[in-house]
Amino acid sequence: MDGFGHLDGISAPGRLAGPDESITAEELGLAARNHGLPLEALRYEVTPPGLHYVLVHYDIPAARAEDWRLTVDGRVRTPLSLDLAALRSFPAATHRVTMECAGNGRARLAPRPVSQPWLVEAVGTAEWTGVPLRLLLAEAGVGDGAVEAVFGGADHGIERGVEQDYRRSLPLAVAGGSDPEVLVAYGMNGAPLPPQHGFPLRLVVPGWYGMASVKWLNGITLTATPFTGFQQVEAYRYRQEADEQGEPVTRIAPRALMVPPGFPDFMSRARVVRPGAVLLEGRAWSGHAPVERVEVSTDGCRTWSDAALTGPVGNGTAHAWAWRSWRAHWTAAPGSHELGVRATDATGRTQPLDQRWNRGGFGSNHVQRVSVLCAPESG
Amino acid sequence: MDGFGHLDGISAPGRLAGPDESITAEELGLAARNHGLPLEALRYEVTPPGLHYVLVHYDIPAARAEDWRLTVDGRVRTPLSLDLAALRSFPAATHRVTMECAGNGRARLAPRPVSQPWLVEAVGTAEWTGVPLRLLLAEAGVGDGAVEAVFGGADHGIERGVEQDYRRSLPLAVAGGSDPEVLVAYGMNGAPLPPQHGFPLRLVVPGWYGMASVKWLNGITLTATPFTGFQQVEAYRYRQEADEQGEPVTRIAPRALMVPPGFPDFMSRARVVRPGAVLLEGRAWSGHAPVERVEVSTDGCRTWSDAALTGPVGNGTAHAWAWRSWRAHWTAAPGSHELGVRATDATGRTQPLDQRWNRGGFGSNHVQRVSVLCAPESG
Repeated sequence: MDGFGHLDGISAPGRLAGPDESITAEELGLAARNHGLPLEALRYEVTPPGLHYVLVHYDIPAARAEDWRLTVDGRVRTPLSLDLAALRSFPAATHRVTMECAGNGRARLAPRPVSQPWLVEAVGTAEWTGVPLRLLLAEAGVGDGAVEAVFGGADHGIERGVEQDYRRSLPLAVAGGSDPEVLVAYGMNGAPLPPQHGFPLRLVVPGWYGMASVKWLNGITLTATPFTGFQQVEAYRYRQEADEQGEPVTRIAPRALMVPPGFPDFMSRARVVRPGAVLLEGRAWSGHAPVERVEVSTDGCRTWSDAALTGPVGNGTAHAWAWRSWRAHWTAAPGSHELGVRATDATGRTQPLDQRWNRGGFGSNHVQRVSVLCAPESG
Repeated sequence: MDGFGHLDGISAPGRLAGPDESITAEELGLAARNHGLPLEALRYEVTPPGLHYVLVHYDIPAARAEDWRLTVDGRVRTPLSLDLAALRSFPAATHRVTMECAGNGRARLAPRPVSQPWLVEAVGTAEWTGVPLRLLLAEAGVGDGAVEAVFGGADHGIERGVEQDYRRSLPLAVAGGSDPEVLVAYGMNGAPLPPQHGFPLRLVVPGWYGMASVKWLNGITLTATPFTGFQQVEAYRYRQEADEQGEPVTRIAPRALMVPPGFPDFMSRARVVRPGAVLLEGRAWSGHAPVERVEVSTDGCRTWSDAALTGPVGNGTAHAWAWRSWRAHWTAAPGSHELGVRATDATGRTQPLDQRWNRGGFGSNHVQRVSVLCAPESG
């Protein structure tokens, strides 16, 4: 980990923003590259191309489909090296999956972890098509003693002084599972993967935060010991202190988001609605279990009422790993209002009103609050 | 303009950031929604879907192609109301166009105008397909005394206290011109427009900054007097003082950008290259005239050498309004370096080394500088 001491000047340790420290130039640099889902795009059940959130750790690699190979090796009986045609010869599956960045909500935390500064919009839902990973593992044959599958991507960079290709692992039971069924995906919404979503090949792990769904996937290695790479044991841990081991970031905590009603001010993004009936609507999801309840507040999260829920409800149903739709009716009266929405899943997990802080800003799912001014039409 | 005084609390006048004021929460809110071109995507001659810059003033409207109508009215002989089928019955044209946001570079200015905080990446090149506007104007018949065409979009919001649909105008000679040929576009890169790029219909004005290319286009009105709407006379003016009339923002100033070489640090985005031969490459464009020269500096903009240029070179040639490609060879020696690149077009316009400041942060094209650390492989 210290081989890049001479890179210290360009690759600093993780840190927290100071008490009054605004967004830094480096955070802005990331925000200009990566992007969230504009919240009005929650209206689309499947997110159209270009609106799904994107987080690229390093650079989008220059990839040619015709040259791409996926190797499957390590503790397997028969190592594989597959081109795209070989992958397409396996039975294909398509899953509608809601994916969310583990750092979603980070920029709302205090103190703010300095990294990609997401507010609440790092989410999207796509139809991913590819080969179920369990079929590839069966083809290679899981060898004795294998406990994890390590996934390697082609994106290369430095993070906190460590030069690396992006790599993450999954326990073998998750990697080879059928619910959720992990995909080695070559299609998104019926088309080849766009470059920023992993062209030509990526992992898709339904129910897990996005860091598990390795993009530009070129290698799968079965190992006899848990993977200890940077993205597994340094990054993506729930920690209160910098020097503790922490808990791994895995599945997506429940969250509901609202299409902000009415229309916005350009700069503040504050909303204006007209007095009278206002439809509130949005989406809700959880990586632990189906969302069973969505509640809406129109009085600054003091009182709540149930929203109507539609969409996939349970494991094994179509789109079980995609968001559900919710809607509620509000009668807006002139004045300022604060709306809120929260989801609860079948395990009883729900969204807190206040932040549950951790050093990396991961899994932050305290409720979205939307300020709305109800104003009559002017002349 | 004062009918929305009661909206003052959510819709403030334009302002400049203070001397030590970092990026604000409101600027971050815009940066999380809108996005630039990740600079490594300069490698694609035509920008793939989702990588082209996006700036949405208000919300992306919910639009149904089957309900959409484009009206052409005002000073015309025959007012038109056209659905998409009617528009597709006109002869279609496809133009490859480099589009750039007028505010590109704004966040590099000091003092910084507080608005969408672009660094250098608000650009993209697409193949736009649609009806030449001149054919629609001929169909409607330009009436006596018409001097401008006013274009209305369906996106609705408030800006500096003024509630509005987004609207912009063009002089009639530009609107009906054939070089550049303005399009009423329904296709982007061979597919229907994505929602964020104006689905189902937008204007495309080659050579002009993006504010002219009105999205979600639903109306064209020919007028006998110049349009005085917000986006024409309040926003998008070159001004030194808030109270001056200023000059209109029109065509794109020349700019060259570089694919940052080597690989990045995640947080700082600083680059690392290995010692030896490094290919430098990127794109260059101008809305005034073809780019005729691109120069590269590897010593912090002290000395310059010519890059090799390829691609469309003149009016009337295919893709005349698209960026050109440039490349140069650099032999990197261990240590820190600052790279720079600048374009000069056939009118002699070029890029300054230092900012040319204006209050809106428009047309800012001082040279991109890329910090690179050249370091041998460790271990």
